[in-house]
Amino acid sequence: MARQSRAGSESTTAPRLRRVAIPADVDGRRRVVVEDVWPRVFDGAFNVKRVVGDAVAVEADVFADGHDRVAAVVLHKGPGDRSWRELPMVELGNDRYRGGFTVDQVGAHTFAVAGWIDAFGTWRRGLERKIAAGVDVAIDLRIGAELVAHAAARAKGADGRRLSALGAALTVETALADELATLVARYPDRSHQAMGPEIPLWVDRDRAGFSAWYELFPRSLGAPDRHGTLADVEAHLDYVAGMGFDVLYLPPIHPIGRTKRKGPNNSVTSKPGDLGSPWAIGASEGGHDAVHPELGTVADLERLIGAARERGIDIALDLALQCAPDHPWVTEHPTWFRTRPDGSVQFAENPPKRYEDIYPIDFESADWKDLWKALHGVVSFWIDAGVRVFRVDNPHTKSFGFWEWLIAEIHSDAPDVLFLAEAFTRPKVMNRLAKIGFSQSYTYFTWRTTKWELTEYFTELTRGPQREFFRPNPWPNTPDILPEHLQTGGRAAFAARLVLAAMLSSNYGVYGPAFELAEGRPREAGSEE
Amino acid sequence: MARQSRAGSESTTAPRLRRVAIPADVDGRRRVVVEDVWPRVFDGAFNVKRVVGDAVAVEADVFADGHDRVAAVVLHKGPGDRSWRELPMVELGNDRYRGGFTVDQVGAHTFAVAGWIDAFGTWRRGLERKIAAGVDVAIDLRIGAELVAHAAARAKGADGRRLSALGAALTVETALADELATLVARYPDRSHQAMGPEIPLWVDRDRAGFSAWYELFPRSLGAPDRHGTLADVEAHLDYVAGMGFDVLYLPPIHPIGRTKRKGPNNSVTSKPGDLGSPWAIGASEGGHDAVHPELGTVADLERLIGAARERGIDIALDLALQCAPDHPWVTEHPTWFRTRPDGSVQFAENPPKRYEDIYPIDFESADWKDLWKALHGVVSFWIDAGVRVFRVDNPHTKSFGFWEWLIAEIHSDAPDVLFLAEAFTRPKVMNRLAKIGFSQSYTYFTWRTTKWELTEYFTELTRGPQREFFRPNPWPNTPDILPEHLQTGGRAAFAARLVLAAMLSSNYGVYGPAFELAEGRPREAGSEE
Repeated sequence: MARQSRAGSESTTAPRLRRVAIPADVDGRRRVVVEDVWPRVFDGAFNVKRVVGDAVAVEADVFADGHDRVAAVVLHKGPGDRSWRELPMVELGNDRYRGGFTVDQVGAHTFAVAGWIDAFGTWRRGLERKIAAGVDVAIDLRIGAELVAHAAARAKGADGRRLSALGAALTVETALADELATLVARYPDRSHQAMGPEIPLWVDRDRAGFSAWYELFPRSLGAPDRHGTLADVEAHLDYVAGMGFDVLYLPPIHPIGRTKRKGPNNSVTSKPGDLGSPWAIGASEGGHDAVHPELGTVADLERLIGAARERGIDIALDLALQCAPDHPWVTEHPTWFRTRPDGSVQFAENPPKRYEDIYPIDFESADWKDLWKALHGVVSFWIDAGVRVFRVDNPHTKSFGFWEWLIAEIHSDAPDVLFLAEAFTRPKVMNRLAKIGFSQSYTYFTWRTTKWELTEYFTELTRGPQREFFRPNPWPNTPDILPEHLQTGGRAAFAARLVLAAMLSSNYGVYGPAFELAEGRPREAGSEE
Repeated sequence: MARQSRAGSESTTAPRLRRVAIPADVDGRRRVVVEDVWPRVFDGAFNVKRVVGDAVAVEADVFADGHDRVAAVVLHKGPGDRSWRELPMVELGNDRYRGGFTVDQVGAHTFAVAGWIDAFGTWRRGLERKIAAGVDVAIDLRIGAELVAHAAARAKGADGRRLSALGAALTVETALADELATLVARYPDRSHQAMGPEIPLWVDRDRAGFSAWYELFPRSLGAPDRHGTLADVEAHLDYVAGMGFDVLYLPPIHPIGRTKRKGPNNSVTSKPGDLGSPWAIGASEGGHDAVHPELGTVADLERLIGAARERGIDIALDLALQCAPDHPWVTEHPTWFRTRPDGSVQFAENPPKRYEDIYPIDFESADWKDLWKALHGVVSFWIDAGVRVFRVDNPHTKSFGFWEWLIAEIHSDAPDVLFLAEAFTRPKVMNRLAKIGFSQSYTYFTWRTTKWELTEYFTELTRGPQREFFRPNPWPNTPDILPEHLQTGGRAAFAARLVLAAMLSSNYGVYGPAFELAEGRPREAGSEE
């Protein structure tokens, strides 16, 4: 051959090949791409969430250059699975494929989409068109016979023998028969298949998706002038079960601090005999791993959990990671708190408000590893006592990294544990908490009252990308939030809000018995408290 | 202290700490998160595209737990930069931040967003609130003095001395003064900063974003019965420049195959003297790195490129990666083509249509590495001749992996080279080509005629995620596409379509001189060809 040189003479010179590099991990023969796999949460960095029994629908764009047909499968691995299970995908049009699987095990799952060129299907479609156009297909049958022979070589046993026989005597009739298509499809050439990202999926037990919560203060269940106990709660179980609730949530049951104890309604002084806020956790009797002596013992709690379980009820404890000034950690681990220049421990504040009965934990502590382990120890302690649901108090004031680690760590031992995020805060923060592992989330429902507000908000929650990771748990009221419509709307407002919460979401909750009593008196006019 | 055991006795037992693991790469003190950085293309896997001179606006969600203020910056690295340049971000509300930078260099850039806790800003805001509420701030000033002392320790020279002095005698007035805020902000504590993903950004020269293309067949520029030449094209440059075009695109200028040469209008037989399709590339005179002798020589092309450059015009060559049966590669590299069972080479077909004058390259060839290098050699050859723009013929029938590699490899040597994808095919395929590196893309404009169609389509192209990577280059016509409205609409339709193409996109093109002549006769009735 003659090539022209750049100078235009007719001498034969090869083009000047530059030294080019092809990375070792490139398979130049891989022609299929897998894109835009759904569901996934923020680029696949976080778990998609489902509950046991869910059918997980998976979609992806799968295509190659040119006009070749492609085949695609969903790959799924459940907890403990060492290899992928494969499920077929069907084409939806516009290069989109759909498949799926059902999840029947609580825990960590993974899925992905794989695709490859369907050489036989491409050939078969061409053959059909040529036959329809009356074109000679002698060569095409020989090409098809080669494809069938290759499939036979990949196959085993009877299938292999049948494929060999069909390939050796391929006719238009046998080429287009379903038998051959079915057989060849069992042994595709996937040596150059493409695989999309492995997407993490967390499967919870059913209650993560379907739950009705009831909150009560055990200490309020006693007779007048007697402190209620865990045994009183046990006696109350049938009442709660009778209303159809299946999660009974108890505010903190730990010893309450005495230093700077607050009086009723957040007053800064307390009289002897004032009980204090149960969220001011820790005293000489113990901290987060102790039961307030007036409520009972850990054994009482274990008995309560057992009695509740018989009625299909989960007992949910409150996880409020903060300390009263006389919490044992304050002296045992002073580095877990922030010290002020005068040597005192920094109390909680939201300037100019001060909460001197509460010391926040300092998540910037240099000793954060021991802190994390101790907090993990608290959660483990209650899990050992039988607790499987935690309502987490103000999770948005503790570091995201901590929760992400804690929940994953707990779930690796006890995948059936659920965490409800009590975060009434900015949308991005609430979403982040849901993404890093909280099973359910409090919502803005409490303040959404008009039809337009409710429609907009629940459309966002149930139709947007949040649906893959954020499970709303709407509450008409809480012990410290009595929205205006409940103050003025009377019993009808309570009923309406309960029905809305229960119908708009498969998880919801109320603060009782104030709710059944339609207790609508605010602390003072204009207050929600 | 006394803790309760699980059995409820009052003996002191520590909670049973499980053996928990904290991964070594976790920084427990990092409280800030960076999320949802924009722009990014498909999870950041592909380049965002811009042209030189563009202001690149970057947004991200940046926030921490709690109510602390955060600070955020955009980090930017241009070609050859070894360290990041930093640019401030401002808060937009709802935890969203915006910043940006201007790109002034063609080539590979990277950007990211970093954020950290603004401890001083948080403290200062609290101080303001306490002062407004009339609270004593003596301890707060001491806390602030510590923060200022830490900033002083991080600072150098005059700033450090000034910070030390301000910190040592901090008053409400100096604490709230702008001077201190500005100085402290220069020396933030970023030891626990969070950084979002590094997002790749490709910056092209201006012409990638703003171009007017004119296509002509050089052979048609001769006098009647004389084959046009590259010199004729040169003589035509002023005409093209006079109309305002700045890219002159020539269909393939290589030797044309003689075997199975087609006659006019794709007829399957040709008479001696028929020129054949320029897309049937390769003959005894050479292949993709040769000039068709009747058009001239490589030197003629180099002269044309120089003359065009003087008029601000880029000469665009056609990159049609397919071979005529007498292309030198067919005998030199038989493994680059598919062989049929009868020993013949597989010609192009779209059953039942056959294109026997063209052999497609087999991108599944076992010898794909040599093939890729040879194709790279072709592109390099013309780049050495001065070509900086390629119009790529049917890129969607060659593997995506090849284009992704080729364009990156070429760009690493010659970042000013532009590639226009001539792909009229399915949307996912066209988008993929744009994502893997094509600078501009043909569009569906040719068939979008009603106001609704044009509004929908260009809204999608200019407002959706495609805007970050897909640069539309609409053409009213091409040599083989004469849409119905141009066949029936007369000169007015040509004028309207030209104005629409030019106004709807900053890149557009026409096939001339047929366009100026308003050539509206189809090959036959009902055909677009």
